[in-house]
Amino acid sequence: MGVRFGLLGAGRIGRVHAKAISADSQARLVAVADALPDAARDVAAQYGSEVRTIEAIEAAGDIDAVVICTPTNTHADLIERFAKAGKAIFCEKPVDLSLARVRDCLKVVEATGARLMVGFNRRFDPHFRAVRAAIDEGRIGTVEMVTITSRDPGAPPVSYIQNSGGIFRDMTIHDFDMARFLLGEEVETVQAAAAVLTDPGIATAGDYDSVSLILRTASGRQCLISNSRRATYGYDQRIEVHGSLGMASAENQRPVSIEVASVTGYNRPPLHDFFMTRYTDAYAAEIAAFIAGVTAGATISPSGEDGLKALALADAALKSVAEGRAVRVSEVLNG
Amino acid sequence: MGVRFGLLGAGRIGRVHAKAISADSQARLVAVADALPDAARDVAAQYGSEVRTIEAIEAAGDIDAVVICTPTNTHADLIERFAKAGKAIFCEKPVDLSLARVRDCLKVVEATGARLMVGFNRRFDPHFRAVRAAIDEGRIGTVEMVTITSRDPGAPPVSYIQNSGGIFRDMTIHDFDMARFLLGEEVETVQAAAAVLTDPGIATAGDYDSVSLILRTASGRQCLISNSRRATYGYDQRIEVHGSLGMASAENQRPVSIEVASVTGYNRPPLHDFFMTRYTDAYAAEIAAFIAGVTAGATISPSGEDGLKALALADAALKSVAEGRAVRVSEVLNG
Amino acid sequence: MGVRFGLLGAGRIGRVHAKAISADSQARLVAVADALPDAARDVAAQYGSEVRTIEAIEAAGDIDAVVICTPTNTHADLIERFAKAGKAIFCEKPVDLSLARVRDCLKVVEATGARLMVGFNRRFDPHFRAVRAAIDEGRIGTVEMVTITSRDPGAPPVSYIQNSGGIFRDMTIHDFDMARFLLGEEVETVQAAAAVLTDPGIATAGDYDSVSLILRTASGRQCLISNSRRATYGYDQRIEVHGSLGMASAENQRPVSIEVASVTGYNRPPLHDFFMTRYTDAYAAEIAAFIAGVTAGATISPSGEDGLKALALADAALKSVAEGRAVRVSEVLNG
Amino acid sequence: MGVRFGLLGAGRIGRVHAKAISADSQARLVAVADALPDAARDVAAQYGSEVRTIEAIEAAGDIDAVVICTPTNTHADLIERFAKAGKAIFCEKPVDLSLARVRDCLKVVEATGARLMVGFNRRFDPHFRAVRAAIDEGRIGTVEMVTITSRDPGAPPVSYIQNSGGIFRDMTIHDFDMARFLLGEEVETVQAAAAVLTDPGIATAGDYDSVSLILRTASGRQCLISNSRRATYGYDQRIEVHGSLGMASAENQRPVSIEVASVTGYNRPPLHDFFMTRYTDAYAAEIAAFIAGVTAGATISPSGEDGLKALALADAALKSVAEGRAVRVSEVLNG
Repeated sequence: MGVRFGLLGAGRIGRVHAKAISADSQARLVAVADALPDAARDVAAQYGSEVRTIEAIEAAGDIDAVVICTPTNTHADLIERFAKAGKAIFCEKPVDLSLARVRDCLKVVEATGARLMVGFNRRFDPHFRAVRAAIDEGRIGTVEMVTITSRDPGAPPVSYIQNSGGIFRDMTIHDFDMARFLLGEEVETVQAAAAVLTDPGIATAGDYDSVSLILRTASGRQCLISNSRRATYGYDQRIEVHGSLGMASAENQRPVSIEVASVTGYNRPPLHDFFMTRYTDAYAAEIAAFIAGVTAGATISPSGEDGLKALALADAALKSVAEGRAVRVSEVLNG
Repeated sequence: MGVRFGLLGAGRIGRVHAKAISADSQARLVAVADALPDAARDVAAQYGSEVRTIEAIEAAGDIDAVVICTPTNTHADLIERFAKAGKAIFCEKPVDLSLARVRDCLKVVEATGARLMVGFNRRFDPHFRAVRAAIDEGRIGTVEMVTITSRDPGAPPVSYIQNSGGIFRDMTIHDFDMARFLLGEEVETVQAAAAVLTDPGIATAGDYDSVSLILRTASGRQCLISNSRRATYGYDQRIEVHGSLGMASAENQRPVSIEVASVTGYNRPPLHDFFMTRYTDAYAAEIAAFIAGVTAGATISPSGEDGLKALALADAALKSVAEGRAVRVSEVLNG
Repeated sequence: MGVRFGLLGAGRIGRVHAKAISADSQARLVAVADALPDAARDVAAQYGSEVRTIEAIEAAGDIDAVVICTPTNTHADLIERFAKAGKAIFCEKPVDLSLARVRDCLKVVEATGARLMVGFNRRFDPHFRAVRAAIDEGRIGTVEMVTITSRDPGAPPVSYIQNSGGIFRDMTIHDFDMARFLLGEEVETVQAAAAVLTDPGIATAGDYDSVSLILRTASGRQCLISNSRRATYGYDQRIEVHGSLGMASAENQRPVSIEVASVTGYNRPPLHDFFMTRYTDAYAAEIAAFIAGVTAGATISPSGEDGLKALALADAALKSVAEGRAVRVSEVLNG
Repeated sequence: MGVRFGLLGAGRIGRVHAKAISADSQARLVAVADALPDAARDVAAQYGSEVRTIEAIEAAGDIDAVVICTPTNTHADLIERFAKAGKAIFCEKPVDLSLARVRDCLKVVEATGARLMVGFNRRFDPHFRAVRAAIDEGRIGTVEMVTITSRDPGAPPVSYIQNSGGIFRDMTIHDFDMARFLLGEEVETVQAAAAVLTDPGIATAGDYDSVSLILRTASGRQCLISNSRRATYGYDQRIEVHGSLGMASAENQRPVSIEVASVTGYNRPPLHDFFMTRYTDAYAAEIAAFIAGVTAGATISPSGEDGLKALALADAALKSVAEGRAVRVSEVLNG
């Protein structure tokens, strides 16, 4: 019969997951909850689901798993509640913006034995997975150096930024997870530089829009990350991994890949406009992996621990900028 | 409520359309018919449809449109029956392998005023559409010369080839339609060369596996087509259009676009394995266009006439190979 | 001491060869002749050579080889004179525009035992050579189908076209040679279509500016050629060769290969402006091959016979357009 | 008559410059000096020059300029001697490995009014120049972030590394200059991470083989540099510059740019094997720029000051690794 789902939060990303669940023959979307009744009704109608309260989903006997797409500041509470209710949990990143709160939350998850997957969608992108597979197949030897380029088409509103935890926790967090996914070793130190170059309003919110990072593992492996909140040519998402035998890389994806040549040269259209179109396949594969994990009773990855470690790298980066030095991750993890 | 569909034929391509119909909020798959009851049941179960006979679908008051995915030799008869039954018709290419039979069938369609769309899926590929759009926007000026490369990963079984009408009617037919789509003028003459280079078995079936064509319009526009039944590196599908102001082209699509560099150089994985994965988006867009056309009561394209004209080009090509000369399309169309 | 050269013709292409000879440690440019004394003086001064008459070079004891860069209608006569004078001969293509005249000329060459190389420079392009090498190494198996794209940035003046022998003998001639270089079998039949699409003035000269060709060998190998006298985006020179095991291709070369991405997409600059910049390396390698051949007393390729056969393909193409049929090369070669 | 040159040092790079000088119609190679008489004789013979001692060249009335290609530890002394002798000076990088020695040397240069160009050849690569030109034309707006990838095919012998000044002064020095060339602002702070990943022998020499750097200017512009002494796929040299309006990038150059597709996918050959072949055009353009500058009496760039500043960045990087902190360039420049 498959996994019976409750969806918490029927906003943009919630709808992406609702569609993926409904299209999966191993799953069914049973109920939808949202603070905005219309949003919940809309999604429920489209997929033949019921509208329920969060409390009702928590108590329901016909729900095996929940997908948490509510605002960030509710994530940790909801994880704890649904862990205690015995549901499998898929939670959009981040678990919380506070490392301490995440740590506490994961203790509850561990105590209840609940299964928790954190939504680092990029691990499921077919191209990035293929890079990881090339590494696993030994095609580039031992991983030595990684470069991650991640540039958003435009910054979110300053009002969003003020509650986002800052660029490292909000945007770079995906690259931190990708770095861990690709490096194959835990990061030991973080060095970061940051500036506001695209919009002075971001400075007034106490945040940055252009950051550069070096991550280093104990054995000396290194990862460079380049982030900007602005890329006029579309959503720039690239990785390259250098190993002892070679390099594996994934270039940008394009919605339309034609080329027009004329007297001004060769022109290709811009990249995808943002993550919703760029990572369509990744979102579907992510939920499929969660469903497969729940069905098989298997370990689910990326885990809450992965969420914690990515957040620790963000905190270390912030500290590195503030103090102008290389920060050991252990300083913030055990801090 | 949208368009209510009956599906005739629940094989591989029938399932592709069933999925597209079900995912479209403007349509519903009401009934499925197939000579193999299990196939029909399977598809019906997946999408909450009924299994019915073709006769029942023909007579049904709750069916607005049919999708014909049955064997080629049944297409013309079914089109006539459902045209008379007042249903909108989407028919997989070709209408028939005989030009005379197609002509007769289209007369019935015309007499009944039925709406008919022929399944030239490539017109709906987002990349090819973007090339067409670049032309329409005037970015390359007046179209002058087109090159179409179309190479299958491997030949079908000889048993299939024997009933296929030959490579021009079975495979090049798509390129003929694409040529007409891109040239913007009707083709006047066809020149073709053909050979068997990949498998002697194909010669015993009286067919070719490697063909080259030049199409020429009255004003002198030209189209080169290169076809082979074998491409070791995947399904090779490229177009380029040269105009007075420049060129527009669409390169091959890849399921995974990573690159691995090593001591042997830079390596990218093979292309898509065949049309089912290469044209996934095209099939969905094709059915969406049909649904939109039926809903709006609008003209539907590509039409039966488009099917007829592509077939005439195939017949002209065959004649060109046999007689070693440039064949005017009017010779076969009016023959 | 190396090969001692006389240069006949100090125009644009003569200067290219003069530079290549002077830079080669195995050769020395001894003398330069040109109908325009200033041109000869200029080149001679630059490379420390003498200005001489053609007659003087013919009689000279200190000249081993000549490079013929004079107007086309003098080539055959000069080849015969210098063959009789015992010099090794490098002659720019074509030997002559008349097949009969070429045939006669080659008889003289054969009778004298003179060594003659014809200037099909593209065989020496490092990228095209690498494609040929990939074939020779067996990387794509048995050659089956070739596609050659060759588009000039712009047409020469009509006054030039009137004496050029027409597009097939003047422009496609290079592609005919490249087809023979890549197919590995002699061409048996030629099919061609032609039109004037870029400049009506070309029609008044009795020529075409846009042509498409199919060449076919006895075993069924095929070559498509696409030519235009206009390409707004630069000098378009591409080849691709399909074999039983795969494909080898050479893309266009660019003087500057940067890319600029902006809100309008990704832009690369136009291609080389024409053959002088595109084939710089090829011209140098060509003369080096001639020098090596003369020094070693080895066979020199491409030979006069290669020049003859390429011209025969041009004549067959012209006949194909005129008569609307596939023309056997033997019809014109033995005509 | 042009610039009359003396060449000091007839090794590998000296020969590159000798060839470029001889091919330039505005220059003449008058004399060659080398500690190894055979090397000097060999180069002199090839270009019709004399073998002289350094002292003779210093005193010569027929020498306008010298090219210094001797071992690094002689550079500063020779610059001072030839500055005092009134010659224009082209000196291979670096001026010296000691910042203090460079500073002293440049004082002599300034006092004598001598013209000095330092051999940062990459500024003259046509592709990198085109990126710089795209910036200057305003195509990407205000520069914000730069990424430089520079990976050598293999490490030099440990014996070389021991006297090289270390990877930052020997290899990254080129990237430091390129960063300054592209950022358009002086670097304020340097952050670096370093490790030995390719060969333990490098660690015994007290050096690193894999380094990552972040450079930051006062206004917040950032540059990421990724260096490795090993790249199995060839000499990896890429830059990309992000600005307020877009990105300009230069991809790797290839000696042969064919592609072979087969059942294992699409394969392109490795990159250039090292700087001698990758930067052939850059070396020629560099000497041409020096000649043009000397002839015109114009300012010559890159200057001794550019050499000093690149070295300061190397020293700051070394300090950053040692102290695990962001190092201000002023600390080492004024140290």
